[in-house]
Amino acid sequence: MTSFVAHTAVDCRDAYALSAWWKQVLGYVDLEDDPNLPGHEECMIRDPETGHRLLFIEVPEAKATKNRLHLDLRPRAGSRDDEVERVVGLGAVVVADRRGIHGPGTGWVVLADPEGNEFCVLRSEAEPADA
Amino acid sequence: MTSFVAHTAVDCRDAYALSAWWKQVLGYVDLEDDPNLPGHEECMIRDPETGHRLLFIEVPEAKATKNRLHLDLRPRAGSRDDEVERVVGLGAVVVADRRGIHGPGTGWVVLADPEGNEFCVLRSEAEPADA
Repeated sequence: MTSFVAHTAVDCRDAYALSAWWKQVLGYVDLEDDPNLPGHEECMIRDPETGHRLLFIEVPEAKATKNRLHLDLRPRAGSRDDEVERVVGLGAVVVADRRGIHGPGTGWVVLADPEGNEFCVLRSEAEPADA
Repeated sequence: MTSFVAHTAVDCRDAYALSAWWKQVLGYVDLEDDPNLPGHEECMIRDPETGHRLLFIEVPEAKATKNRLHLDLRPRAGSRDDEVERVVGLGAVVVADRRGIHGPGTGWVVLADPEGNEFCVLRSEAEPADA
């Protein structure tokens, strides 16, 4: 007997706002039978292709330190750099730029969402290995 | 354009040991072309059915506070209570027992892995709604 990961839960200040933000980043959607509404203290979103889920839960305490868990994202198409530009346009903040850290064709960018949760944008699977 | 979640990264003290522990909990496996070995500072594991991935990364800093992100697990079969007993047998520690919090057939148990990372075990999809 084992378990599967039903979802990854994210403590937050505003579950509806943060879930709406991540829907733009990931192309996720609400659950059909339980759509999220402003004021909801728990908001679930899911990947319509894979079913992967994130659950945003309001908590009283503020974020205090670097998150011990974080999401690593890969663009579904296009390039890492275009995706970084897009999510910064949505309101993400660059925390650390690790592009080229191991030479050409390597590296990632560390960003933070509107509540300060760190995440990374990796290179897409379509990008050439050496550029 | 959007991104998908390539994996969830977990900062840790011992990537090999912690990834091996979570393989027992989740039934995950190493990547075929990049098996984990003792001493590796980054260890990726994956769900052989869904492809869902966790990446354990060694960091210098210790866990300082309640994690802002956590995994919610659902037993693939059997009951929540049997699964809680199993993962405690593997070395998990009960942090908070929320069974029955909303009446019969509800609730979960908050546990911590060997490095103190919180996670929850939910009721399985096979469990009756009212018991």
